[in-house]
Amino acid sequence: MKIVVDAMGGDHAPRVVVEGAISAVQEYGAQVILCGDEEKITPWLKKAKYSGKNIEIVHAPEVIDMCEPAANSVRRKRNSSIVVGLNLVKTGAADAFFSAGNTGAVVCAATLELRLLPGIERPGIGLVTPTLKGASFIIDVGANVDPKPIQLLQYGIMADAYCRSILNKNNPAVGLLNIGEEEAKGTDFMREVHELLSKSKLNFIGNIEGKDLFSGKCDIIISDGFVGNVALKVSESAAEAMQAFLKRRLLSNIMGKIGLFFLMPSLKRFKKGIDYAEYGGAPLLGVNGVVIIGHGRSNSRAIKNAIRVANEEIERKVNDRILEAVK
Amino acid sequence: MKIVVDAMGGDHAPRVVVEGAISAVQEYGAQVILCGDEEKITPWLKKAKYSGKNIEIVHAPEVIDMCEPAANSVRRKRNSSIVVGLNLVKTGAADAFFSAGNTGAVVCAATLELRLLPGIERPGIGLVTPTLKGASFIIDVGANVDPKPIQLLQYGIMADAYCRSILNKNNPAVGLLNIGEEEAKGTDFMREVHELLSKSKLNFIGNIEGKDLFSGKCDIIISDGFVGNVALKVSESAAEAMQAFLKRRLLSNIMGKIGLFFLMPSLKRFKKGIDYAEYGGAPLLGVNGVVIIGHGRSNSRAIKNAIRVANEEIERKVNDRILEAVK
Repeated sequence: MKIVVDAMGGDHAPRVVVEGAISAVQEYGAQVILCGDEEKITPWLKKAKYSGKNIEIVHAPEVIDMCEPAANSVRRKRNSSIVVGLNLVKTGAADAFFSAGNTGAVVCAATLELRLLPGIERPGIGLVTPTLKGASFIIDVGANVDPKPIQLLQYGIMADAYCRSILNKNNPAVGLLNIGEEEAKGTDFMREVHELLSKSKLNFIGNIEGKDLFSGKCDIIISDGFVGNVALKVSESAAEAMQAFLKRRLLSNIMGKIGLFFLMPSLKRFKKGIDYAEYGGAPLLGVNGVVIIGHGRSNSRAIKNAIRVANEEIERKVNDRILEAVK
Repeated sequence: MKIVVDAMGGDHAPRVVVEGAISAVQEYGAQVILCGDEEKITPWLKKAKYSGKNIEIVHAPEVIDMCEPAANSVRRKRNSSIVVGLNLVKTGAADAFFSAGNTGAVVCAATLELRLLPGIERPGIGLVTPTLKGASFIIDVGANVDPKPIQLLQYGIMADAYCRSILNKNNPAVGLLNIGEEEAKGTDFMREVHELLSKSKLNFIGNIEGKDLFSGKCDIIISDGFVGNVALKVSESAAEAMQAFLKRRLLSNIMGKIGLFFLMPSLKRFKKGIDYAEYGGAPLLGVNGVVIIGHGRSNSRAIKNAIRVANEEIERKVNDRILEAVK
């Protein structure tokens, strides 16, 4: 299995991407194609003294920057690492694509190059999140910010297949992210989605509220891409603020300082536990191929883990399961 | 200044409401009208041995429960504590109304009984939140889940007046909660709101993302009621999950246990710092009167603080400022 990695994607590319790819090769025996500007990639491979055969380079001279408008760049920059890399999957030269670059561009290029799975109208970005009762899966966190109700049902079906395959959950419970638990809550849009989910074969438990995002009340959380994106980023913000408040408070008195000293190892392990880098990548579900999206801030550990996630998705044949489910 | 308090509103009513009202009388010399079922209120006043003149009871035999559909209940239950209480403000017998009860019913009843301020199409619930750089104000967190773009501009104008009066912020910076900072990000709806805010007299700094909710990047955060409600509840969920993860981690080894012992006083103070109960109440802006909404989970401290918040809003003449701004 070969994973194409966008060597130019992310805030610290290509350095951390090359380092992450080497770690994935060394730890999991992954086979990686680094796609991007060869002249910028090679020095980092040399610096790491990597000379094995598990990493190839496919040259792509153009780069789509993080803030470029997605659709326009994808159409214009046919030689970008994102478009060239996705074409390696399209032609069968590789089995999956990963990028920590411009998310909008990856979604757009993946849709154009790989096309969608039959029965799916729009791709969605899913994400495995930690909860008090183990992992759960939220979809969509930003691919489709103005969806139609039927598309949220399709996300539910894809998430069900993903959770069974990857998270080993049998009959995962599905919740709809809304502003109240009662059936009639929210907008007309939400009521329509609620009805579609109720009539589906999914194990739909009804509306959930924002306060249940990390409670583990359900295995799958369905959301429109706008709300899902805000929810995810707000969680990051709340966690960061809480850490900062706590530290400030602890350093303000001697008892707190002593406590902090004893606490440091635990705090560090804790931070690792909620660190996005541990999860690595978010699957873009609905396209005809395996595509994983990384956080722009990805470090080499996140890249390594994203390559592992891509490998798992290929091995467990998630797309075959989705195809069966939407038949 | 007399504050009408819905004695029947909230998960622990009327007990905590009566206790909170007594605290507010004792600490701030507040004047309170407890509105609700007299037979259920009196025993708690007796139990607390309160015999002063600062608390009156106005009998209202009906209760609108937490989960009742709002509009219907308000029309049907004319003798409920919410409707009777708001009418005391309408007739001038009191100066403000507070309830920790059914939020939808309070929004609906306040709109019907008090009417809206001229120039305002829909009321919005604002909330003071802690950030890394002091307090900020988010509006709307759930009164208007399917707003029109112009209504979000009106929220901005009201929030500006509120922040100048209550938070003593001069020329507060206004941000629009969106899924990216660039002007073109988000939905058509968001782009329309962005344009309206850009053309207004407000100190509009542009889009902000969920990750900035607690960073203190701006003083006022404008959001549609659906997204604002989810964002707020997700923050609660993230903070609670983080505390639970941390505690679990700390109790798993001896170093952590020692740290936790030294840490306890700081953790308790920290929790108090982010505790909703410290803020007490959220103003319902846009109605022709002072209305404060409390969390259903309000304890007596939250009730006490909400009465203080109501007093401040009357004293600082927030509605006069709003009227000047929308002229």
